[in-house]
Amino acid sequence: MAFEKVKRSDNYSEWYNNLVKNADLAEHADVKGCMVIKPYGYAIWEKMQAQLDKMFKQTGHVNAYFPLLIPKSFFEKEEKNAEGFAKECAVVTHYRLKVDENRKIIVDPEAKLEEELIIRPTSEAIIWNTYKGWIQSYRDLPLLINQWANVMRWEMRTRLFLRTSEFLWQEGHTAHASSEEAIIETKQMLEVYADFAENFMGVPVIKGVKTENERFAGAVETYCIEGLMQDGKALQMGTSHFLGQNFAKAFDVKFQSKEGKLEYVWATSWGVSTRLIGALIMAHSDDEGLVLPPNLAPIQVVIVPIYRSDEDFDKISMAVNDIKKKLEFLGVSVKYDNRDTHKPGYKFAEWELKGVPLRIGIGPRDLENGTVELARRDTKEKSVVSIEGIDQHVKQLLEEIQNSIYKKAFTFRDSSIHEVNSWEEFKDVLENKGGFISAHWDGTGETEEKIKELTKATIRCIPLDSKLEDGTCVFSGKPSKQRVLFAKAY
Amino acid sequence: MAFEKVKRSDNYSEWYNNLVKNADLAEHADVKGCMVIKPYGYAIWEKMQAQLDKMFKQTGHVNAYFPLLIPKSFFEKEEKNAEGFAKECAVVTHYRLKVDENRKIIVDPEAKLEEELIIRPTSEAIIWNTYKGWIQSYRDLPLLINQWANVMRWEMRTRLFLRTSEFLWQEGHTAHASSEEAIIETKQMLEVYADFAENFMGVPVIKGVKTENERFAGAVETYCIEGLMQDGKALQMGTSHFLGQNFAKAFDVKFQSKEGKLEYVWATSWGVSTRLIGALIMAHSDDEGLVLPPNLAPIQVVIVPIYRSDEDFDKISMAVNDIKKKLEFLGVSVKYDNRDTHKPGYKFAEWELKGVPLRIGIGPRDLENGTVELARRDTKEKSVVSIEGIDQHVKQLLEEIQNSIYKKAFTFRDSSIHEVNSWEEFKDVLENKGGFISAHWDGTGETEEKIKELTKATIRCIPLDSKLEDGTCVFSGKPSKQRVLFAKAY
Repeated sequence: MAFEKVKRSDNYSEWYNNLVKNADLAEHADVKGCMVIKPYGYAIWEKMQAQLDKMFKQTGHVNAYFPLLIPKSFFEKEEKNAEGFAKECAVVTHYRLKVDENRKIIVDPEAKLEEELIIRPTSEAIIWNTYKGWIQSYRDLPLLINQWANVMRWEMRTRLFLRTSEFLWQEGHTAHASSEEAIIETKQMLEVYADFAENFMGVPVIKGVKTENERFAGAVETYCIEGLMQDGKALQMGTSHFLGQNFAKAFDVKFQSKEGKLEYVWATSWGVSTRLIGALIMAHSDDEGLVLPPNLAPIQVVIVPIYRSDEDFDKISMAVNDIKKKLEFLGVSVKYDNRDTHKPGYKFAEWELKGVPLRIGIGPRDLENGTVELARRDTKEKSVVSIEGIDQHVKQLLEEIQNSIYKKAFTFRDSSIHEVNSWEEFKDVLENKGGFISAHWDGTGETEEKIKELTKATIRCIPLDSKLEDGTCVFSGKPSKQRVLFAKAY
Repeated sequence: MAFEKVKRSDNYSEWYNNLVKNADLAEHADVKGCMVIKPYGYAIWEKMQAQLDKMFKQTGHVNAYFPLLIPKSFFEKEEKNAEGFAKECAVVTHYRLKVDENRKIIVDPEAKLEEELIIRPTSEAIIWNTYKGWIQSYRDLPLLINQWANVMRWEMRTRLFLRTSEFLWQEGHTAHASSEEAIIETKQMLEVYADFAENFMGVPVIKGVKTENERFAGAVETYCIEGLMQDGKALQMGTSHFLGQNFAKAFDVKFQSKEGKLEYVWATSWGVSTRLIGALIMAHSDDEGLVLPPNLAPIQVVIVPIYRSDEDFDKISMAVNDIKKKLEFLGVSVKYDNRDTHKPGYKFAEWELKGVPLRIGIGPRDLENGTVELARRDTKEKSVVSIEGIDQHVKQLLEEIQNSIYKKAFTFRDSSIHEVNSWEEFKDVLENKGGFISAHWDGTGETEEKIKELTKATIRCIPLDSKLEDGTCVFSGKPSKQRVLFAKAY
């Protein structure tokens, strides 16, 4: 390929940017901070959406759609969050353009809105304002609603998929009659996210709780899944918030309980975004390009014909069509790359760059022998196998690739969790090894903040499986009951 | 049900609003001009999306995502459209809020954008600005891209689904190396829309071309499908535009042709929106509520148990689970309404209101006889059928209902096309019969405009199958070569 390749070991960040560009996943738009998700990148998002949507529905959720624009005053109702909420928002102030005397398009000064409207940075406010009309009695509960939408947070320093002003996501917003039920929901969705990350994205995650500093402003408790990228940095891949009665109080949403009492409704919200595409890239890909787990690959198998004569091409195509049909019958997505404009070598490199999990090469000699050549994208292993039974073989191999990608990431992640017991060790590991640091912390926001200032490492989470043990804070030396996970993060 | 019911014959418009509300499809948001699409309404949209998306992909299209916000200057590039384009747009002027000294949230005056950004009313501008970077040679063509997105056009008088400031839609934007290819694409997508409208929505449509007055500002030719609602008004259900080289010229998108010449790219765009849900409601529903064609019904069959004792309920439930499993195996979506909070009569009325095509009632006597009672939503016919073979029977019945709904709408539509040859007749038919008026027109925008002013009727389209015949304009008496279709429209 004519693409400039950058190695991960040389410049991880440039490697990432190059890969996103060369694999045709996305690009920066001519609108500050925004991205264009190109068809191949969007196809990955569609696979993610389809699977997540299925999992949401299996757990009893339905989809709905709420307005893009939120009146400014709604944010004021979130009293508690007035200081904490994200203020970097796009603000709509006018509703009309006009053509002036010089045939220039200008904003019509007479079309100024009485109240400014904010493009949703997240939808709790507009949704809880709506739920007020939907909930009167315990019979109306629970509400288990999800929304697929675009949201906007004005970002100054952007990175394709990882941090852009506009991004796509899903946001679940549920309403419950009791605190217990809402907490069960919060944890259930965390499990759904972890299941998706591990079994579809092939990315092992640590499930945990955020510290107060890192918690969503409107939440009582924020749960998260944290993944580890190949450069040793952590990436928050999804959050699930137990919102208590905060939004019900802000928007005055009460219900009559079974006992006839009027009570505030309990809430959760949870979301994952196109950021997951960034995680997918950074967790598995290599210097040759993208490595996609079969469960999320838009194309799972690409077939490349190798031929000199038209006659050979026709023979190969006949055999390929047969193989393709068999594979598709098993639910495998197959592309036959029969372009006559490019040589096989070019095609091999292109599909490698695009991370197609399995390549089938087939030439006249193969046809004679009744075989094809298989090439795995993840390990680059090649094997020659019989055309007979190829469908079952490929299906098994795709499962093996899925597992193998996960295992590789798991081994890397597990060897990157470092137990650390002194400040010197902390700094040394952070600088020389990266990854997660498991260390005692005194539980104060001050210490957390100082560590962040000094090292850029943040507390990613208090892992759910973290054992209680007496220790002393790695920074302040004060007593601690539990280790937490630090890391530099995206 | 405790709902207030309005008859179509009493007040069609109120009947519509009531139905949308009572069937839980959508509601007005507390944001001017915007709607909340409730789960049941959104489920219909999901069915529409799934089918359309499949048809787009079958015709070679892929999805992508382009930014929500468009710099104002982009609109100026559409020189030709400067006068014609929709100016009622939401304008973003600031990118930050702040909390002032009184703890009030205000727009930060220091965060004013240098250039205002417009929330997309449609995406030609941003997409053609992007295509410029994607197209160099004929080898890069065609680009066959679709986007599922929200768009915004500031509307003063809104109607749920039919006309709201924000709505959901898909917009296809394709780029071609020749005029011929682009025209074929434009027509192909019109056929896809007509196929969808007729075979999935059950709404017969007239395919035609818009007059210059009604044409999309940036288009050379606008094709449309027009449906007829039960009140005799027409509804534009989808448009497909041949854009010529207008956008390529506005955004300077050229390609090197096979012959090595630099040429402007040819374009199409096409879209349908959540407006189709409004069309679906208005085309088929009756005074009892929604009537959904099986092909787009989120729930195709509802099963209601009729019992007195817990013992009976358990027996019925066992039989129902078996029936449900069999139906689901055939791809039928089934809901077992086993709520113990409501009586069968209430449930019957609720599912009628929500338009579920087929209801199965089953009581202890039915069990003894090995039968169930089927009730069709569309004709309200009931029949008692054997449980044995129920799955095949239901599947056939659903197909019959789909056909029957279409036929009913077709008969109504066909009896509502009136050939008219004088201005008196024109006014009489319009006032007393409604529907489409097929009349000669002199081809001038002035006549079209005058007729609109006098009668509110517009030229819906010049039907593709309209024969050439000599005649005189129904209004001006000038010569005409072809009849066109007039109607009052939504």
